[in-house]
Amino acid sequence: MKKYVYYFDEGNKEMKKLLGGKGANLAEMTKMGLPIPQGFIITTEACIEYTKNQKQFPEGLWEQVQDNLKKLEKNSNKIFGNIENPLLVSVRSGAAISMPGMMDTILNLGLNEHTMQGIIKKSNNERFAFDSYRRFIQMFGNVVMDIKGELFERILEETKQKEKVENDSEISISGLKEVVKKYKELVYKEIGEKFPEDPQKQLRMAIEAVFSSWDNKRAVTYRRIHRIPDDLGTAVNVQEMVFGNMGTDSGTGVGFTRNPSTGEKENYGEYLLNAQGEDVVAGIRTPKSLTQLEKEMPDVYKQLIEKVKILENNYKDVQDYEFTIEKNKLYILQTRDGKRTAQAALKIAIDMVKEGLIDKNTALKRIDPNQLNQLLHRRIDPNIELEPIATGLPASPGAASGKVIFTADEAEKRGKNGEAVILVRQETTPDDIHGMVQAKGILTSRGGMTSHAAVVARGMGMPCVAGSNDIIINLEKELFKVNDKIIKKDDYITIDGGSGHVFMGKVPMIEPKMSKEFKLLLSWADNIRKLGVYANADTPEDSKKARDLGAEGIGLCRTEHMFMAPERLPIVQAMIIADNKKSRQIALDKLLPMQKSDFVKILEEMHDLPVIIRLLDPPLHEFLPNYEETLAKVAQLKSTKENKDELKKQEKILERIEMLREMNPMLGLRGCRLGLLYPEIYEMQARAIIEASIELIKQGIRVKPEIMIPLVSHINELKPIYNSIKKIAKEILTREKIVLEYKIGTMIELPRAALTADEIAEYAEFFSFGTNDLTQTTFGISRDDAEGKFLLKYVEEGILKDNPFEVLDPAGVGKLIKIGVELGRKTNPHLEIGICGEHGGEPNSVEFCHNAGLNYVSCSPFRVPIARLAAAQAVLKEKSKNSNN
Amino acid sequence: MKKYVYYFDEGNKEMKKLLGGKGANLAEMTKMGLPIPQGFIITTEACIEYTKNQKQFPEGLWEQVQDNLKKLEKNSNKIFGNIENPLLVSVRSGAAISMPGMMDTILNLGLNEHTMQGIIKKSNNERFAFDSYRRFIQMFGNVVMDIKGELFERILEETKQKEKVENDSEISISGLKEVVKKYKELVYKEIGEKFPEDPQKQLRMAIEAVFSSWDNKRAVTYRRIHRIPDDLGTAVNVQEMVFGNMGTDSGTGVGFTRNPSTGEKENYGEYLLNAQGEDVVAGIRTPKSLTQLEKEMPDVYKQLIEKVKILENNYKDVQDYEFTIEKNKLYILQTRDGKRTAQAALKIAIDMVKEGLIDKNTALKRIDPNQLNQLLHRRIDPNIELEPIATGLPASPGAASGKVIFTADEAEKRGKNGEAVILVRQETTPDDIHGMVQAKGILTSRGGMTSHAAVVARGMGMPCVAGSNDIIINLEKELFKVNDKIIKKDDYITIDGGSGHVFMGKVPMIEPKMSKEFKLLLSWADNIRKLGVYANADTPEDSKKARDLGAEGIGLCRTEHMFMAPERLPIVQAMIIADNKKSRQIALDKLLPMQKSDFVKILEEMHDLPVIIRLLDPPLHEFLPNYEETLAKVAQLKSTKENKDELKKQEKILERIEMLREMNPMLGLRGCRLGLLYPEIYEMQARAIIEASIELIKQGIRVKPEIMIPLVSHINELKPIYNSIKKIAKEILTREKIVLEYKIGTMIELPRAALTADEIAEYAEFFSFGTNDLTQTTFGISRDDAEGKFLLKYVEEGILKDNPFEVLDPAGVGKLIKIGVELGRKTNPHLEIGICGEHGGEPNSVEFCHNAGLNYVSCSPFRVPIARLAAAQAVLKEKSKNSNN
Repeated sequence: MKKYVYYFDEGNKEMKKLLGGKGANLAEMTKMGLPIPQGFIITTEACIEYTKNQKQFPEGLWEQVQDNLKKLEKNSNKIFGNIENPLLVSVRSGAAISMPGMMDTILNLGLNEHTMQGIIKKSNNERFAFDSYRRFIQMFGNVVMDIKGELFERILEETKQKEKVENDSEISISGLKEVVKKYKELVYKEIGEKFPEDPQKQLRMAIEAVFSSWDNKRAVTYRRIHRIPDDLGTAVNVQEMVFGNMGTDSGTGVGFTRNPSTGEKENYGEYLLNAQGEDVVAGIRTPKSLTQLEKEMPDVYKQLIEKVKILENNYKDVQDYEFTIEKNKLYILQTRDGKRTAQAALKIAIDMVKEGLIDKNTALKRIDPNQLNQLLHRRIDPNIELEPIATGLPASPGAASGKVIFTADEAEKRGKNGEAVILVRQETTPDDIHGMVQAKGILTSRGGMTSHAAVVARGMGMPCVAGSNDIIINLEKELFKVNDKIIKKDDYITIDGGSGHVFMGKVPMIEPKMSKEFKLLLSWADNIRKLGVYANADTPEDSKKARDLGAEGIGLCRTEHMFMAPERLPIVQAMIIADNKKSRQIALDKLLPMQKSDFVKILEEMHDLPVIIRLLDPPLHEFLPNYEETLAKVAQLKSTKENKDELKKQEKILERIEMLREMNPMLGLRGCRLGLLYPEIYEMQARAIIEASIELIKQGIRVKPEIMIPLVSHINELKPIYNSIKKIAKEILTREKIVLEYKIGTMIELPRAALTADEIAEYAEFFSFGTNDLTQTTFGISRDDAEGKFLLKYVEEGILKDNPFEVLDPAGVGKLIKIGVELGRKTNPHLEIGICGEHGGEPNSVEFCHNAGLNYVSCSPFRVPIARLAAAQAVLKEKSKNSNN
Repeated sequence: MKKYVYYFDEGNKEMKKLLGGKGANLAEMTKMGLPIPQGFIITTEACIEYTKNQKQFPEGLWEQVQDNLKKLEKNSNKIFGNIENPLLVSVRSGAAISMPGMMDTILNLGLNEHTMQGIIKKSNNERFAFDSYRRFIQMFGNVVMDIKGELFERILEETKQKEKVENDSEISISGLKEVVKKYKELVYKEIGEKFPEDPQKQLRMAIEAVFSSWDNKRAVTYRRIHRIPDDLGTAVNVQEMVFGNMGTDSGTGVGFTRNPSTGEKENYGEYLLNAQGEDVVAGIRTPKSLTQLEKEMPDVYKQLIEKVKILENNYKDVQDYEFTIEKNKLYILQTRDGKRTAQAALKIAIDMVKEGLIDKNTALKRIDPNQLNQLLHRRIDPNIELEPIATGLPASPGAASGKVIFTADEAEKRGKNGEAVILVRQETTPDDIHGMVQAKGILTSRGGMTSHAAVVARGMGMPCVAGSNDIIINLEKELFKVNDKIIKKDDYITIDGGSGHVFMGKVPMIEPKMSKEFKLLLSWADNIRKLGVYANADTPEDSKKARDLGAEGIGLCRTEHMFMAPERLPIVQAMIIADNKKSRQIALDKLLPMQKSDFVKILEEMHDLPVIIRLLDPPLHEFLPNYEETLAKVAQLKSTKENKDELKKQEKILERIEMLREMNPMLGLRGCRLGLLYPEIYEMQARAIIEASIELIKQGIRVKPEIMIPLVSHINELKPIYNSIKKIAKEILTREKIVLEYKIGTMIELPRAALTADEIAEYAEFFSFGTNDLTQTTFGISRDDAEGKFLLKYVEEGILKDNPFEVLDPAGVGKLIKIGVELGRKTNPHLEIGICGEHGGEPNSVEFCHNAGLNYVSCSPFRVPIARLAAAQAVLKEKSKNSNN
């Protein structure tokens, strides 16, 4: 018979896959001799079989649970369901990968009318007993029996109102008894069955509920967001209860071995006396700082600090632990590697290298590249004097401005629409995740640094101000009050998660600077990575930013944005509506010096580094006014009959818009197709690039322009453009007697280009995979149309593991890239190959590019540090893979 | 030194690549001892080197020309440029692949003021001499010196008007002298140089002109249309002149050894006495039938028939020959395999097999599958009594209705717009090709069965009525008169190229029937082909047609057309605007019996054969009204305020149209994406298919439905749909206790599907390559947008060899197909794989499919015979390739 249940002393920390993170760590701590309430773990395999087997326990599971329960009774000297000396247990989920707040927990299991008597007698504390009982019914009713939590909350609220008290802990014993009675009535009313009295039945139902919760919506969403596979299953931890709510000599708390926000080596945490488990993290009462415990209970505090120091040394990483004090006795309830801000992660990793705890490669592996994002975003300009309207806890660093929105659903909708929104809530719950993901920042009026909002926001690298008590939210009227101010839905506010301040309106921000830890870690990364890291930048400002952040070149300099500048657009439009080559040339002649000056500035900024400039790509109608508006304008002009010249002009524009309108512009007249139809456009651009380079060379500045032709599907499209550019360049360079290093290459962004890369490499001197378009054509999915309509749903439902526009699809798009690299290098072994789609800054995709043998990735400037780290991690992963083989 | 020039006795018919078709045949005929005016051939290699070498003669060419000219002088006893006894030559192009009318010819070269004296003296015929001279100046001036032909024609016309004669041959000697003078003045005026007097210079210029004409626009267009490579080059034939214009004992003619229109074994041809070369084919004078020659010159006729019989036996194919009679002496001037109608091609091939001239495989190879098209199109319903308004020569069989258009440019434009047009011209020239290609039929008022219009139309399988003298065209007023009727531009007419009749308006047509020759040949094809041939058909009528034409199944039965029927559309729309699953289901419940009855009829028609039914594919907005119209309707309803219910309904429709509008519908919410978002639609369709099958099985009819899921890019899209259909089918079949053979498979129409075909084949029981969409996504080209805007230009300019939507692109799309086949069969070696894009009926693509190992091709019903033949030819080509290796 398969072993489905492990007693704590049968496991260790290496067994996470089987026992879940929580279980493996409980086993490890047991092995270390730390003060752990005893218990046992039901394996993830049991959960997987239960799920597969139409929610039936696998054979032998229940018997093994009973055996282990016996052992626990023996060790605890208590008996499960016994009136005199009842054993109470907690039942918690614990997956292999930590999923905080996502899964369900039940405390005080084993309580019923009978065992209550034993508890009262043994604790000699009726209030404690009934408090535990009502908590149990509430949790069990909500989690196992699926009754809405707010129904229980309402009963509790009513009782508090009746008794005119504010905190749960102030409710009288008779009040608690009343609550228990009403809870049971509620259960009966909602379910049509009595609340289960039999502790064995309670246990079985709780285990089943944990198993089932693996597939609840919150858990599934969390796994999507964090890219955790669906088939891991969760373990179930059954553990003897210890009680932090036995009075003021009891308490419960959470802590970190180092500050998870700054990384400082300090004792960091929060606790509440006379409270149980969830009270601290749920943010219902505002907890005290751990340093306070040193004063309130110096012995317990000393013990705690000793024990967690042992923990950190054992795990060689920051530990996030929970503890409970039952009548002055300390218990560690769980430990795990602590989540931390990016800033903290960097400091901790570097400090631990200095302390000799870990080596540099381990430090590099420790940092989640995506998390660096939060260090690379803006903060409020410190030179501006601002009066905050409110202050809360600095729960997750970074600043954000946005419109105030009060519900997760609306935040999701508006955020997806591209609006900047700040989600404002009393406190957040896992049900709000979908809205939090789409917000620019979170503001809560309750809860601490370890509240749900704070933890989640830190994980996502999103600014958060938590527990701002100044704020009074009126959900119904969709506004919040702060002192005498009223902020309505859609008003702009700015939050600063670094200081905890909240400001009215939008506020000037400044760009982030990299800390010395950040720079040090990236220098370690640079030493081992093999991929080059370029940036996508279209302006001198972005180029500078990119260079500052470590970009080794510009991988994609789009020229269309230069066409969009307000003073240029009329000239561009004149070019487009030109009837003939001559009048088109007149417009182009005006554009030439403008384009040239753009290139001069960018090339100067990027001196000595390659700058890959893409010739005009988008369909021409993108430069023309909106169709419906022009239609209306023409109708208007016709009716007034006043301005005939204007009418003529507008009619011409309208005619051209109509001519250029396309069914599927993505697949229409754009890229090199434009360049072939109107050769004079690319000729102007090539001339501008060459002339700009010459101007700089004459000033003694070394430049490396590379000219990139977009949307090539066939070598015969590239050939004439290549020849024409070569000819122009030769003419100018010969005339100016200048030698210029430059290349002409192409985007590989259509399947056919990848499939015929051997032919294309006969002309192209470099390839740049345009994975945005390549993903669109390989999947046959228009990103504009699909994301809202079905693509996100695909990801939610697991049809696609990732959104292929975020994470490069290895099986399809990736296969084309591999084909393209192989064929291209067959023709030209020294072909320079990179990627300039948005995937260039996404760590999984960077790893793919490393493995596919690309020369560089190119991404937005802020993502350059992420790519640098990810590229280093790709090398480390490859090494560890090779050493495992 | 390379040999660039071959005297006629140095070559043979196998040397076409080097000597061109004309030259190789002249050499062959010389070898056969036929009466050929002697001469020599400049090779295609010389042309290629000339083109490569910036229009310089390759080294040694001119010297070799001189050597061969010497030999020709010796053989002819005449001297080039000599006053007394001048040798005159023709200079003609001759490419390896026959390009009639495309390349340029110069006759009577060697004439000048001096040699004219010799010609007059020797021929004793001043009229002949000056007629020859003015022809030479006209041809040379036009072809070599690039002076517009109409300028020469105008001088000739003026002379005729002055002399009040109708035909060129009636112009007086003094008139001809005047013409020669004016021609020379014209040349000087246009070019600023005198017409060259030196015969050597004439010869050199003529050779250069032929070389250059390889790249003239007409030739390039012809090569595009006929898919002839651009790098073959043309040979130049220099041949002693013989003269058909020496009087009434002289003449010139063309003939076929069998009737090229019907295939009958008869002497077929036309001639003119006292005429030269181009007169017959140019259609300027209407020629006499060859049978007339038997009466006019019985000896010459007998000789001619004997000689061409020898020719046919030698070439084992119908010969298209030219001859000239110079003072009762017969000369054969050239021969080539005769172009013929499809009907003739079939009859000739089968007759030749019966005669033992060729074997069956040769017969199969002889037929151009594309040509069969003309046998498969409509003709005028013979049961209708119709009065033709005019009659001409039945120049190319088939009937067509269309709007009258008078210029090639407009015919091209309107034809590309999808309008049916009939190009009406006095006579056509190679400059009209671009318009002819886009017309449905050609009507000319002058010229015979071998006129340009007739030859080209037959080649393209396009109906043509030629030389309808009843018709008087007024180009300026854009109309033609016929008796007392006036037919204006854009009026509809119908032409019947089988009878030569022209009718007013559109006329009822009937479908073609296959001749017994056609059926016999296809039965030979069926015996050797390996590919199955299915048809794309959405209706019982099309299914029947397909089966009659030999389809072995339906490869693509689209279900969306069934949704478009007027009585169903409101229900479909109700389904689309449904807010919820329930009201959507109500609409679907109404559609179910309708869909079922469609499938019953189609499956019944196709009993015992597979029918592949594709579930709903297009985006839903295609079923909704036009956006702009609905917008207007809503505005209208709002202003009248009368019909509030209708307003509400229209507003809802408008809202839904707006919601469903897409930037790139090709890549949007369609295909299986719809099926996943609204599973109830596919469920209804699956149910309809299974229930229809059961209904027929109960009647004892064997059916083989196959259900096809469109637009799959990832196995996870197919999986849930597959499972859902399986479940529905199992439920119904179990309930009805029926065993049904059916399959569930998928389209492979996105690059990702081909690239992950191994995964997809784990569920899909068949693949059908949807090469229309696969071409769109592989190239990143929207066919709707591209064809008018740049794709045809790409083909014209040689950027693409073929339009990839017509001929499957082997290097890109084809590579994906091969990848898909290989991966699919790796998972499932017995996977059934076909193609259902429009390429399925295109011979080159059929050959590709054969070579790629597909099981079948599926095409429109009329293309089924073409595919059957092409599939057989693919086998023969493969065999001959293998035997060559």
